[in-house]
Amino acid sequence: MFKTIVLPVALLGAAAGAMADEGQWQPHQLPQLKSELKRIGITMPAEKLADLSKHPMSAIVSLGGCSASFVSPDGLVVTNHHCGYGAVQRNSTPEKNYIVDGFLARTRAEELPGGPSSLVYVTEKVENVTDRVLKDLGPNLTGRQRNEAISSRIKALTAECESDKAYRCSVPAFHRGLEYYRIKQLMIRDVRLVYAPSDKIGNFGGDIDNYEWPRQTGDFTFLRAYVGPDGRPADPSPNNVPYKSKDFLVVSAEGLKNGDPILLAGYPGRTSRYKLPSEIRFARDVDLPGRVSTITADLDVIASATKGNAAWDVRYASVAKSLNNVLKKSQGLLDGFARKDIAAIKDVQDAEFRGWYGKNGKGSTLLADLDAVIAADMALSREEGAYAEATHSDLLRSARLMYRLAQERQKPDAERDAAYQERNLSFIKARVSGLDKSFVAQVDQARYAAALNRYAKIDQKLRPQGLDALLPNAANLASLYQTTELGDTNKRLAWIGKDVAAFQQSNDPFIQLAVRMNDVAKSLEERRKEVDGNLDRTIPQYMAAVIAYKKSQGKPVYPDANSTLRVTYGTVSPYSPRDGLVKGPFTTVEGIVEKATDKDPFLVPAALTEAVKAKRYGVFKDPVLNTVPVNFLSSADTTGGNSGSAVMNKRGELVGLNFDSTYESITKDWYFDTAITRAIHVDIRYMLWVMKEVDHADNLLKEMTIKYPKK
Amino acid sequence: MFKTIVLPVALLGAAAGAMADEGQWQPHQLPQLKSELKRIGITMPAEKLADLSKHPMSAIVSLGGCSASFVSPDGLVVTNHHCGYGAVQRNSTPEKNYIVDGFLARTRAEELPGGPSSLVYVTEKVENVTDRVLKDLGPNLTGRQRNEAISSRIKALTAECESDKAYRCSVPAFHRGLEYYRIKQLMIRDVRLVYAPSDKIGNFGGDIDNYEWPRQTGDFTFLRAYVGPDGRPADPSPNNVPYKSKDFLVVSAEGLKNGDPILLAGYPGRTSRYKLPSEIRFARDVDLPGRVSTITADLDVIASATKGNAAWDVRYASVAKSLNNVLKKSQGLLDGFARKDIAAIKDVQDAEFRGWYGKNGKGSTLLADLDAVIAADMALSREEGAYAEATHSDLLRSARLMYRLAQERQKPDAERDAAYQERNLSFIKARVSGLDKSFVAQVDQARYAAALNRYAKIDQKLRPQGLDALLPNAANLASLYQTTELGDTNKRLAWIGKDVAAFQQSNDPFIQLAVRMNDVAKSLEERRKEVDGNLDRTIPQYMAAVIAYKKSQGKPVYPDANSTLRVTYGTVSPYSPRDGLVKGPFTTVEGIVEKATDKDPFLVPAALTEAVKAKRYGVFKDPVLNTVPVNFLSSADTTGGNSGSAVMNKRGELVGLNFDSTYESITKDWYFDTAITRAIHVDIRYMLWVMKEVDHADNLLKEMTIKYPKK
Repeated sequence: MFKTIVLPVALLGAAAGAMADEGQWQPHQLPQLKSELKRIGITMPAEKLADLSKHPMSAIVSLGGCSASFVSPDGLVVTNHHCGYGAVQRNSTPEKNYIVDGFLARTRAEELPGGPSSLVYVTEKVENVTDRVLKDLGPNLTGRQRNEAISSRIKALTAECESDKAYRCSVPAFHRGLEYYRIKQLMIRDVRLVYAPSDKIGNFGGDIDNYEWPRQTGDFTFLRAYVGPDGRPADPSPNNVPYKSKDFLVVSAEGLKNGDPILLAGYPGRTSRYKLPSEIRFARDVDLPGRVSTITADLDVIASATKGNAAWDVRYASVAKSLNNVLKKSQGLLDGFARKDIAAIKDVQDAEFRGWYGKNGKGSTLLADLDAVIAADMALSREEGAYAEATHSDLLRSARLMYRLAQERQKPDAERDAAYQERNLSFIKARVSGLDKSFVAQVDQARYAAALNRYAKIDQKLRPQGLDALLPNAANLASLYQTTELGDTNKRLAWIGKDVAAFQQSNDPFIQLAVRMNDVAKSLEERRKEVDGNLDRTIPQYMAAVIAYKKSQGKPVYPDANSTLRVTYGTVSPYSPRDGLVKGPFTTVEGIVEKATDKDPFLVPAALTEAVKAKRYGVFKDPVLNTVPVNFLSSADTTGGNSGSAVMNKRGELVGLNFDSTYESITKDWYFDTAITRAIHVDIRYMLWVMKEVDHADNLLKEMTIKYPKK
Repeated sequence: MFKTIVLPVALLGAAAGAMADEGQWQPHQLPQLKSELKRIGITMPAEKLADLSKHPMSAIVSLGGCSASFVSPDGLVVTNHHCGYGAVQRNSTPEKNYIVDGFLARTRAEELPGGPSSLVYVTEKVENVTDRVLKDLGPNLTGRQRNEAISSRIKALTAECESDKAYRCSVPAFHRGLEYYRIKQLMIRDVRLVYAPSDKIGNFGGDIDNYEWPRQTGDFTFLRAYVGPDGRPADPSPNNVPYKSKDFLVVSAEGLKNGDPILLAGYPGRTSRYKLPSEIRFARDVDLPGRVSTITADLDVIASATKGNAAWDVRYASVAKSLNNVLKKSQGLLDGFARKDIAAIKDVQDAEFRGWYGKNGKGSTLLADLDAVIAADMALSREEGAYAEATHSDLLRSARLMYRLAQERQKPDAERDAAYQERNLSFIKARVSGLDKSFVAQVDQARYAAALNRYAKIDQKLRPQGLDALLPNAANLASLYQTTELGDTNKRLAWIGKDVAAFQQSNDPFIQLAVRMNDVAKSLEERRKEVDGNLDRTIPQYMAAVIAYKKSQGKPVYPDANSTLRVTYGTVSPYSPRDGLVKGPFTTVEGIVEKATDKDPFLVPAALTEAVKAKRYGVFKDPVLNTVPVNFLSSADTTGGNSGSAVMNKRGELVGLNFDSTYESITKDWYFDTAITRAIHVDIRYMLWVMKEVDHADNLLKEMTIKYPKK
């Protein structure tokens, strides 16, 4: 006999008018959503959430690609295990394997350097600079002129902001170019590893469970931001001191229960919610199937080229992991598009909009213009895809990057293409030197040969003009790889800073190839500028119309994600992926033991198993579940980049970290389907329980401000 | 935003002290469970359920292997589609394909003959005859003497009861031989097909969904019992009239909701709940793995032997289906044993029992004796398994059966082995003639050759003594199959009735082989009688002790299933197969459309899809689900044989039919795990909705007494 379960209509396959928790809102937009936040039970005032200089938003930081938050006044940062993985990896040796064993600094002195990729960005200022970017750009500019004018103004705005070297600034487009904001971020570049659980906890389930539920991953890690003795960002140094974070999140060990509201703040990377139906069809019918087939083929080549060579296999492990992640996401999108005809849904919405626009747009040619520009964009992107196949060699791409740098460096810094400005030189160097960890000449050769063969099968009309004649023969690549010196990291790096003439006189076959391809590449780049400039002209007009249309219906509009700080909200809630099946909202520590095997990624630390079997739940026992929750689902609106985002309760206290979303949610980047979209979070109670019962991280438990549940 | 879902503790992986809905009770036991029935909400008095002559038990019937119930005073019977499948199949032709199109008789005249295997058994009397079976069987009898004495008494009891030829009687053992009951059943042998939906409804999901949830199968069919003009069972004849069923179930179109109590009555086939730990280990470690490997190999042979020959493929389709069903069940048992150490659980229970018995058994040698007898049983069963491989040919088995019949017919009927008594002759004939639908000589030869090769790999010690020398060489089977005439159905049937001498003088190689093997087979049979007789002596003493032990704890004990009428109860309830996942309790018509493909077994009739898309739910719309429910789960205790069992609400009204159980439930035949054991039922509302909206079976809707929900 079981107690009665009240299952909501929305979970039982019936048509239900569920309200959406859609929206990755700019903090300043939140006051518009005041009543909605109140309705779901958020007690923190929307105005407070809008102010970046105040709690809790000033505790939310970016790691560049991941999100995180301060959890003590001494710069202690909590994020996902997979976001801090690089720091753990670089400090691990066969003797001290922190990946497998976990790492805990019991004193500040024991904290380990996170390396040059470990950065903490604190967003201090967000200004609307739309006027300064777009003002007086006449309608008669060509696409390329418009694109270059915008780039040039953005560079100037960035340079002005970065006059204080402690800051990193950017001027991203919002609403597909309708608005521009300048984001000013303190960039802390001495970031140390404080605590990471074993990957048996932090990466439990590994690639197999990636995008899956049920899930029991302890995806959390602690870092600490350090600054110079003057309190300002400084290069890593033993003299540095912990950053005095103005703000930090209070931790609530009380956790959440099913149905509770949540707030989630972080830096979502990229979404495509405002794409037109034609763009969705292009993704669904051309781009994604092509990507899936290319990546699948590439992974096969890597697997067979590294087979039987453990060292090579290790070098390509992270390459394969990241390709697999893109593959799973792409396949998930295709599966989602097959499950639900999102293009058809968008057709209906688009038709409604066009109907409204017909009445309100006063005979404008915008929509026809738009369709033409998008068609040009799609056509060009197919050529770019062909170009990517034709240059699918790490050595060739390095050579191209460095030659391009040499060309750009002929110009004053302010006039260079943004990617090649001095402020980005360290990133270019990191990319060129990074190959030493993930490159094997024989494997690169096999991948490039296969890519050239795939290129040869692409319809002639879809290949960039003139490219064929420049390419090496797939069958004769061996001689290139035997002759080149670019495989040697030092010799490769030595090319950074050489001038154009040096490249042109080189005998290195990959340098020669890079030089030889220059005109074709340049032409593609210029055509891209033309198309982008035309998109920059038409799409913002379209978005303005869409926003006006939505406003006429009383609906606020959030911009697509663009790696800037956003707030989303939702409730802890299960979902029904199929008729008769309900997933979530919680998993429990018992589920870890249930899933354990004697093989990675389902290994479990003995101390954890022992604590579960002994039911040593402590104060972290959920009163409904009667055990410690591990992961939970919410209806909040997230995407890549939201990894490590703080999940907060109604009062803005930390109750978990976002780290993934379910497989059925993958299509949310294109269309937010309320019924099935769920983000996956690690429960704060599991984090604290692991820290106490498994890893005994008492120093950190003491450092944080934790509100324990009342007895 | 979703409404809050209250998930019960038991579904969230936490340890929960859920109460068991375990027990397949003999109706007369129900008054002992009075308070339990009341507690879950059953309002029908337990005493009423105990009386087979009263409503509702007198409406519950057996089809011989399946369960069913009367639903009108004119002998209308409802059961599962898969139970009535034979009747649909035998009436189908390529021109009138009732399997695919479904069949509906709009008048009684249109009802079609169900064929000789369509039988309806109405249990009229159940008597405890333990004394007459076991009285004065001295302790000094050998096993074989005891076994034969019991068989002889059972035959006499049966013959006495069957003096009225309208009845079929049996004397099955209960509590592993502690008690014997004589069951007297009216056997109605003119049973006609009234209505079967298309197999797109009745077998939706097919073998793929067998034992699975989510499930959306409309597994129901209507038959009608006919009797002679005198009201007594008669051979099929156009002069027969519908049987005036004294009782029938009222149908409640109101259905059930999550948490509601149910009653389920039917004829469960066989369970092994009281096996000792050693017997479980034997099943887990020897019997089931052997069965899985043999069936897998056999299915491979069938697949490759029938490959490319559509007609042969059809002939072996039902053989393969039934092998696949046993395979899935066996594999499910092994998976279940791997998931939960049932032997270890039984060890604990057994140790507790043995502790109690040590104090109360007064120095008896029973337990040691029992262990020895069970060891002998397991050893013999391995030889029997080897014998089965050595005779794995349909032709050889027919020859053995008919030769055995000839031998038995040398004795007076009452002295014959029960299986070969005159009363069973029609079943033997049906078996021997039935091969014409599922036999191809070349396929049989391939299966037998493979089985002989498997036999050759069995440890010499586990093969019956003397058998090796008698067997044909696997490589030389072709000549046997070329020479034999047994492949011809008429020639095969002609051997029924021939005497022993005729068999001994035959030149047919399979008849010769059957004769040659006789001594070995006879010896195995006699050793089986010896072992069974010893089991008959010891196990009932053990069961008596177990019952006394349970009684000392205040717990009633139900006997293992033995194809006799039983009642079980439970509640509509979902379950959690894994941490973070909840299955059930309902599926909906939307789930059918969601699962539909253009391939069998996921084809959906257009009329059904259309009705779903138009939301023509009518009065069958569930107020919580807002749509028509299709299947639901309950915690009732069922097993094979319960197919077609009436699922009744608290008032004894029909609300569904049992037809399957979930994969995780398969181990229930050995151990009832309350948390995960769920039976799968087809919801009466779906049945009625299909009848109304899809098949327009208005005549039947009118014939039944249906209580519609109040507006």
